Amino acid sequence: MTDFSHINEQGRAKMVDITDKKVTSRTALAKSSIIVNEEIYKKIIDQTIGKGDVLSVAQVAGIMAAKQTSNIIPMCHPLPLSGVNIHFDWNIINEKHELIITVEAKTKGSTGVEMEALTAASVTALTVYDMCKAVDKGMIIGQTYLVEKTGGKSGTYRREE
Amino acid sequence: MTDFSHINEQGRAKMVDITDKKVTSRTALAKSSIIVNEEIYKKIIDQTIGKGDVLSVAQVAGIMAAKQTSNIIPMCHPLPLSGVNIHFDWNIINEKHELIITVEAKTKGSTGVEMEALTAASVTALTVYDMCKAVDKGMIIGQTYLVEKTGGKSGTYRREE
Amino acid sequence: MTDFSHINEQGRAKMVDITDKKVTSRTALAKSSIIVNEEIYKKIIDQTIGKGDVLSVAQVAGIMAAKQTSNIIPMCHPLPLSGVNIHFDWNIINEKHELIITVEAKTKGSTGVEMEALTAASVTALTVYDMCKAVDKGMIIGQTYLVEKTGGKSGTYRREE
Amino acid sequence: MTDFSHINEQGRAKMVDITDKKVTSRTALAKSSIIVNEEIYKKIIDQTIGKGDVLSVAQVAGIMAAKQTSNIIPMCHPLPLSGVNIHFDWNIINEKHELIITVEAKTKGSTGVEMEALTAASVTALTVYDMCKAVDKGMIIGQTYLVEKTGGKSGTYRREE
Amino acid sequence: MTDFSHINEQGRAKMVDITDKKVTSRTALAKSSIIVNEEIYKKIIDQTIGKGDVLSVAQVAGIMAAKQTSNIIPMCHPLPLSGVNIHFDWNIINEKHELIITVEAKTKGSTGVEMEALTAASVTALTVYDMCKAVDKGMIIGQTYLVEKTGGKSGTYRREE
Amino acid sequence: MTDFSHINEQGRAKMVDITDKKVTSRTALAKSSIIVNEEIYKKIIDQTIGKGDVLSVAQVAGIMAAKQTSNIIPMCHPLPLSGVNIHFDWNIINEKHELIITVEAKTKGSTGVEMEALTAASVTALTVYDMCKAVDKGMIIGQTYLVEKTGGKSGTYRREE
Repeated sequence: MTDFSHINEQGRAKMVDITDKKVTSRTALAKSSIIVNEEIYKKIIDQTIGKGDVLSVAQVAGIMAAKQTSNIIPMCHPLPLSGVNIHFDWNIINEKHELIITVEAKTKGSTGVEMEALTAASVTALTVYDMCKAVDKGMIIGQTYLVEKTGGKSGTYRREE
Repeated sequence: MTDFSHINEQGRAKMVDITDKKVTSRTALAKSSIIVNEEIYKKIIDQTIGKGDVLSVAQVAGIMAAKQTSNIIPMCHPLPLSGVNIHFDWNIINEKHELIITVEAKTKGSTGVEMEALTAASVTALTVYDMCKAVDKGMIIGQTYLVEKTGGKSGTYRREE
Repeated sequence: MTDFSHINEQGRAKMVDITDKKVTSRTALAKSSIIVNEEIYKKIIDQTIGKGDVLSVAQVAGIMAAKQTSNIIPMCHPLPLSGVNIHFDWNIINEKHELIITVEAKTKGSTGVEMEALTAASVTALTVYDMCKAVDKGMIIGQTYLVEKTGGKSGTYRREE
Repeated sequence: MTDFSHINEQGRAKMVDITDKKVTSRTALAKSSIIVNEEIYKKIIDQTIGKGDVLSVAQVAGIMAAKQTSNIIPMCHPLPLSGVNIHFDWNIINEKHELIITVEAKTKGSTGVEMEALTAASVTALTVYDMCKAVDKGMIIGQTYLVEKTGGKSGTYRREE
Repeated sequence: MTDFSHINEQGRAKMVDITDKKVTSRTALAKSSIIVNEEIYKKIIDQTIGKGDVLSVAQVAGIMAAKQTSNIIPMCHPLPLSGVNIHFDWNIINEKHELIITVEAKTKGSTGVEMEALTAASVTALTVYDMCKAVDKGMIIGQTYLVEKTGGKSGTYRREE
Repeated sequence: MTDFSHINEQGRAKMVDITDKKVTSRTALAKSSIIVNEEIYKKIIDQTIGKGDVLSVAQVAGIMAAKQTSNIIPMCHPLPLSGVNIHFDWNIINEKHELIITVEAKTKGSTGVEMEALTAASVTALTVYDMCKAVDKGMIIGQTYLVEKTGGKSGTYRREE
């Protein structure tokens, strides 16, 4: 069988061959956020949103999404996630209430966990939206990006602030 | 059996009862974006990204994610999606190359399709990231939000710009 | 095409034809339980189990499993769940600490939601086990059964205590 | 929101809008087959294949795949399957042992069940292959095609033999 | 990136870090059961239940559920299942007909297979309920518990009878 | 716990124990095809099929199905796919327009990737059918079979033409 590490003839999609990549410990740290109004902020804090405890449900959703990443992102390789942790911080400036979502993902595998961390961050934010949208549909999911990754051939990446 | 439209005793999560909500035509329009560097922009346009045609794969991913929304977002009701369409536009200002992602989702159901449109938008952006991350990991997924929704008891919502 | 409401020739499995069954409101109430030791009981109450808030995670798991029922139970029809609610009660007698799990499920569909309620109850109990098994593997998931169902051609069923 | 029944600007994929299509009873009948050697044929009949009763497992796999069709086929609409039935017949001519797989699928929905019937037929054949491949990897899955469909705007289709 | 083996600040859920746990052979043995009435017992034995051969379908369901465990149980790690086997025994005392379900699961991985065995046992029992509920809805799924597990840092666990 | 490498007592299904099989590099090459009429052939080439670019969507579907193989095929073991590539060739003889689908799959695992390659080939063909069925329902999915596999205890298999 011929090697297929280059683009196929039609220039279309493929899941690239990582058979020969080394199994190493890898981590990724991603961030997202969601801006909510004051009413929603208070209801999240007081746990009085009708659908339930928002942060608790969002955290579970993010972790479960991390495990589904290779089924959601078409060319993403399946890998054995060895840990996922999601933190929340509130950033409140004047009228603006921003929930910061930070996801750490870990694996011991042949490819990185960046997509798992980013997917978990996005789904955590989407779940906050879903839990609170009966109060206000104007929430905005903020920027989603990779903060850091370690392990693998390309080594450590750290976002410059 | 008692009605369970209020918060359960423990203040925890539930999938709220929509049995008596009317089946109506509903639409939702959501936006997301992803900022890429010039090299990635050119490779997307020229279809020379190693993993394949980026926009084509991202579009399929977004549509498939729309159908998985109620499995990804814990308290989201399943609904029969009747249409999903995803558009791309490039917004290029000086050095900044931003791919705008617009998703329209439709259903005839008892609850809205906002989450389907938002989830599709997020997954489309995540897929662009995955397809291009071998070139640069510094891409940023931009704000993700609901632009408009129609149908249902609460009627039409339109975001004020 | 011939009608296929009877057993196929090989006596094997089929998903029975419900095309002509009426769409009605349907509910089901199921129960399960899990017996834990005193240490686990206290840690659940104090929310000091290492994996997180046990009841909160278990509740989300049960609701998500209800939505997956027709993918888990081979001959079960897909149906549009319109509501799921899960309650917890502690039944403590001497040394025995039993967590009672009650699930209410609702739909407006052509077939009953018994399996959705029962599956949610089982998965809620399994999730409690998973969250607490680092403390003690001797937990026992108690009897799981249907308490009541309403709607559909066969009408109301109520378990005799 | 603009109507999106035409191809989007990029000529790429979309899930076409079926919001206004009528809900009618629909059926589809599809066929596939698999050619096995005499040893496998005998072991299937005698139920002595190591992995278990081949036809029984294949039938369950086909029915479960029918329910997953809209998650497997990207632009396929989700629909509420109301019945699936799979039949097996042996067609033996000299040395050739062909297992004929016939799938009937039914729904009451806004779009046809052709893909559900075809997907179930393919997965049934693939499962037979998986169950028997330890004996011989030379099995061939035969032609897979739609035999008949009824219901919907386009009415009845019957394949000409 | 900081180590995250302790509870996160909000006391909420996380998938604990197992990156440094050793890959060893692991097994788990779980039991469940379902109590059916005499009519159902006879129909299972005679394979005359309308939906098909009950034990055969239930066995397939249990095995497939074992593979889905990390998608069903939120904080459960994905692991490469290397074997699953499900046995049935009838325990008949006077009027009571109890089907005993025993599941053995194996892996070579960094964490145990207890949840896979327990989930398979529960889903096998739920599937028996689904296949037979047209005859009687009063079936009771019996206690579900871990009998034994081997491998890993905590070594062998055996339930005391 | 007893070894369970032989058929269980009831002669039913099991996922066979591969705990002790070696982890080696493995590849599989499978083929399928679909015969379309001239109108569909031209529309695929011109990318004027209403649902989008047929080959592009089919390729993504095939790759995603490869990753879902162990969830679709009941007794198939989960394995970490390390690469999937799908090629298309047109074989046109007189009036007959046949699209040849070739799938290469790779893994480093304890069992072969034949099922992943075959499942991807079938789903690619099914997706072509779905994308084009509004034009003609008479398309036929051609023979689907394994061409070659390498690695593992049984070594290399090559189909004799």
